Amino acid sequence: MTATTTDRIFNFSAGPCTLPLEVLQQAADELPNYQNNGASLIEMSHRSKQVVSVFEEATQGVRDVLCVPDDMHILFIGGGATFQFGMIPMNLLPNGKSADYIHSGAWSKKAIADAKAVGNVNLLFDGSDSNFTTLPDATSIKASDDAAYLHVCSNETIGGVQFTDYPDVDVPIVADMSSEITSRPIDYDKFGLIYAGAQKNIGPAGCALVLIKQEIVDQCPGNLINYLNYANHVKGASMLNTPPVFQVYMIKLVMDWLKAKGGVAWAQQQAETRSKTLYDSVERNNGFYKCPVDAKYRSKMNVVFTTPNADLDAAFVKEADAQGMSGLKGHRSVGGCRASIYNAMPIEGAEALASFMDAFAAKNG
Amino acid sequence: MTATTTDRIFNFSAGPCTLPLEVLQQAADELPNYQNNGASLIEMSHRSKQVVSVFEEATQGVRDVLCVPDDMHILFIGGGATFQFGMIPMNLLPNGKSADYIHSGAWSKKAIADAKAVGNVNLLFDGSDSNFTTLPDATSIKASDDAAYLHVCSNETIGGVQFTDYPDVDVPIVADMSSEITSRPIDYDKFGLIYAGAQKNIGPAGCALVLIKQEIVDQCPGNLINYLNYANHVKGASMLNTPPVFQVYMIKLVMDWLKAKGGVAWAQQQAETRSKTLYDSVERNNGFYKCPVDAKYRSKMNVVFTTPNADLDAAFVKEADAQGMSGLKGHRSVGGCRASIYNAMPIEGAEALASFMDAFAAKNG
Repeated sequence: MTATTTDRIFNFSAGPCTLPLEVLQQAADELPNYQNNGASLIEMSHRSKQVVSVFEEATQGVRDVLCVPDDMHILFIGGGATFQFGMIPMNLLPNGKSADYIHSGAWSKKAIADAKAVGNVNLLFDGSDSNFTTLPDATSIKASDDAAYLHVCSNETIGGVQFTDYPDVDVPIVADMSSEITSRPIDYDKFGLIYAGAQKNIGPAGCALVLIKQEIVDQCPGNLINYLNYANHVKGASMLNTPPVFQVYMIKLVMDWLKAKGGVAWAQQQAETRSKTLYDSVERNNGFYKCPVDAKYRSKMNVVFTTPNADLDAAFVKEADAQGMSGLKGHRSVGGCRASIYNAMPIEGAEALASFMDAFAAKNG
Repeated sequence: MTATTTDRIFNFSAGPCTLPLEVLQQAADELPNYQNNGASLIEMSHRSKQVVSVFEEATQGVRDVLCVPDDMHILFIGGGATFQFGMIPMNLLPNGKSADYIHSGAWSKKAIADAKAVGNVNLLFDGSDSNFTTLPDATSIKASDDAAYLHVCSNETIGGVQFTDYPDVDVPIVADMSSEITSRPIDYDKFGLIYAGAQKNIGPAGCALVLIKQEIVDQCPGNLINYLNYANHVKGASMLNTPPVFQVYMIKLVMDWLKAKGGVAWAQQQAETRSKTLYDSVERNNGFYKCPVDAKYRSKMNVVFTTPNADLDAAFVKEADAQGMSGLKGHRSVGGCRASIYNAMPIEGAEALASFMDAFAAKNG
């Protein structure tokens, strides 16, 4: 079946989320018979030249799009970012050291819980004091004396807070960039390991992208179970085991799409435009909509806001859905409304939503 | 694009491997716009009613097809069977106990290595003495006094050996059934945990199916990282984290397909026919082809054989490939030839290969 843009809803889900229609269409076209090989790509051995090529191209695509330096390995690991929450301390938190964490919301909370299961954790910032509506000033962050690394979640999808600058610390920063990867440039000097669940900006759920420096790989302990050890994934070139071929193939297609659009520079500009379009509507209808987030740290990926009450929040979500704008309900832990606007959300989607927001406020204000 | 059976090669890859064409075609048709929702299933929130339904149907499909008893949970876990090799001892091998393992080939070797990284392992059988061409008599296996479980790999894809009966032991058996799941009935009384990488009989790579009894879940230690703990996956109903939606969707479609065909009874009969077709050609051309495997334990999923020499092995693989029969090269660790014949391989594929084998032997014998 060929889908057209007129069939499409605007999908504001937080992840899994909207993907480029061109990518979905190519995947559908190629699924039953990959490039006339008489088989689907997902039926082929992961050691076949076709699948190996896809992995090489996906890796190179990520390297090109994200300008990943040569001293960082690019890995695709099945299991998602939640698995990385635990894999990171199991590899990087040796006995006798501790790890610094910034608690900025629901996702860093999960990362912290896993680190505590492995070793000592220092909380350098606890956003619960502000109900996770702000972030620490980067210049205020100093690493602990015995810290092996500093962990940050660059963008919290539930609270809608996003780091602007990262701290200058003398330990490697480990960053969960699941919900913003490819939406702005990265200063790799600061980072030892960057990871991202695929299901926001780069592909379907079921795979994490991991960028890891060799100096971090060198520290991985030898006594871990096979799949937990980053060094083994590096050695296996993302084929330590039979990998999630479909996800890596889709990441390759998304990288191709992103390159054709203009890469990270294009994505960043789009993100600025989309988020400004929505925050402007919030401000324009000040008093009706309220964004709880500190203006300095408002996310360009997840715009959270409330209407005057929970009944109107629910009506907003329902009426928007009826007009082809789905996934606008805030996370169940915080309520309200949320528009997730990743790379594949057209500017037209943000414009349509902003118009709806204006009309809804006028009608109900 | 619509693929037809005439486009199709016969794909004898060991996994990833051939999938039902009807399943691939339905997935392709539905990929850009899932059931007229204006979005792909892989773009939808895993908490959406559409995705939750798919997971419920996939779970029920597995329960129906495999006649899974009520006291076993059905889990889909990202990461594949290799991840399970480690997850099992981390959950089931408490301090002070040991685990019994049967070393029947390349896959049990990996499982054993991970168990040794966690605790004490007793090898009840070591197939390396016979170059992994046979298995122990089930009646000869007795569990160790301090064993928490007995681990078996029910079918070794590289050596081509398959258990017929399982031991009667007073500890739960943990079985890697990756390469035979759904191809024959299971006597659940013997098993505490059964796992299978999806990419042989039930779907694409990137997900493991885990069947686990509550009594095993009750033993999972509380101090593991989140993703490693089976109890957390049970609690999350396979949505502890954002799961590999595409793989679970495909498993649902494969279960639907298998039910329509006649379920495990049909699959078992097909497996008998396919494997007999190939082994008969080996025997018919006795002297040219040689199957090293003990006749009692010859796999019905992976038929391994050699021609008189490595040059002829290579010629066999190349000529078969030219005739539309791919993936026949033996694993690089053992050489020779291998035909993997899972559920989705039509009988016609085995017949075509047997005819080719006869002709190749006649020409080169």
